[in-house]
Amino acid sequence: MLNLLNNHRTIRKYTAQPIENELLQNLLKASCRASNTGNMQAYSIVVTTDQTIKEELAPAHFNQSMLTQAPVVLTFCADFNRFTQWCSLRNADPGYDNFQSFMATTIDALIAAQTFCIAAESVGLGICYLGTTTYNAQPIIDALQLPKLVVPITTITVGYPDGEFPQTDRLPLEAVVHYEKYNQFSENAIDSMYHEKENSEFYKQFIAENGKETLAQVFTDVRYTRTANELFSEKFLDVLRKQGFMK
Amino acid sequence: MLNLLNNHRTIRKYTAQPIENELLQNLLKASCRASNTGNMQAYSIVVTTDQTIKEELAPAHFNQSMLTQAPVVLTFCADFNRFTQWCSLRNADPGYDNFQSFMATTIDALIAAQTFCIAAESVGLGICYLGTTTYNAQPIIDALQLPKLVVPITTITVGYPDGEFPQTDRLPLEAVVHYEKYNQFSENAIDSMYHEKENSEFYKQFIAENGKETLAQVFTDVRYTRTANELFSEKFLDVLRKQGFMK
Repeated sequence: MLNLLNNHRTIRKYTAQPIENELLQNLLKASCRASNTGNMQAYSIVVTTDQTIKEELAPAHFNQSMLTQAPVVLTFCADFNRFTQWCSLRNADPGYDNFQSFMATTIDALIAAQTFCIAAESVGLGICYLGTTTYNAQPIIDALQLPKLVVPITTITVGYPDGEFPQTDRLPLEAVVHYEKYNQFSENAIDSMYHEKENSEFYKQFIAENGKETLAQVFTDVRYTRTANELFSEKFLDVLRKQGFMK
Repeated sequence: MLNLLNNHRTIRKYTAQPIENELLQNLLKASCRASNTGNMQAYSIVVTTDQTIKEELAPAHFNQSMLTQAPVVLTFCADFNRFTQWCSLRNADPGYDNFQSFMATTIDALIAAQTFCIAAESVGLGICYLGTTTYNAQPIIDALQLPKLVVPITTITVGYPDGEFPQTDRLPLEAVVHYEKYNQFSENAIDSMYHEKENSEFYKQFIAENGKETLAQVFTDVRYTRTANELFSEKFLDVLRKQGFMK
């Protein structure tokens, strides 16, 4: 089991082999057994296999090829719609149109998403998370017809891996794990944690290809820029207001 | 593997057996292999084993007994602090003090959290998620000395299960899973999905103990009220502003 987790790699290319419906159902069932807030099961999973709908979703994900190439695309959503509807039908006054409720359902959607990924990997499937979901939530809402109190949080493409894929590097554990209290790093500690990454041939080439001086600049100037982050922040907050989570 | 996931139950009581450090390290390493946004590894995990610090954390979690009783408490945090520090030391201009960056790091923290839970369960440990983390983030920030651009998202208590624990019910899969597009439920569909739950002896007793007429009212009037949700929404948004994620 730890071997499975330690062997994780993102799979961006899939064979033509479809995922059998019974297998998909079993993976979804296992995902829905994971922990969730107050057992409200306030989240939802939209399964897309129809090629036309995948193509409708594609521009929101900047036309990344995984989306139209994968046999199955899953959009995990924060969802207080069904629970609110149930409360209204049961003489109860639902108060889930606020940011705290959004956080609870977001947490639950992600717990289910990662459970799905591990379940899928355990049967030989490969997955890829698409971080574009919160950038362009509105066109995804339109394509999947998500009602109020439903917001897409993450998207996973799933299929049988086509080929071998390398494992990406990780920082030493102490970059992420703190003991008892938070450890604010010294400059030396940062240098030491990033030493291996910054001195690898892979990243040296990556920096050169991007025409930058440092690896950090590839992130700040090319991949995750302030301008894009601020634009997508505004857009996502607008979506939260419009979908009814900011009362 | 699917058996493990299908057997998940929340464990709220632990034996006195500690978790060996080597095992804990292996579980944390496996968690940090999970997918994360752009391989920035922008999240952190604070491990608490010191009884004094657990007691400092306890009020923020409404003194739930798992917190002080579990051998290990993990606080998973959204964290752009270390990455921002690295960028600043590498002649790069970090733009991660915004809501979109908060969403990315929150997603990554939760993917790591659930990977940890599954890893822990695979070696016989039991876990419990505490949803109180986003209610009372400020006292957790104080207790763990979290700097700017670090916000606690969820807390997990971990230990060896003391006794047998029942598995909670789940709604039929169609309450959570939608195919191709979102399926807005009819009143009949809601009645049918909630039929088993609403007619179980367990929930009938639960409703009576709470002095309510319907199960939904236990949620809206007792467990997750509008007043509390709105109060905790304000508090958490204040924390996001103060920690620097709402520029």
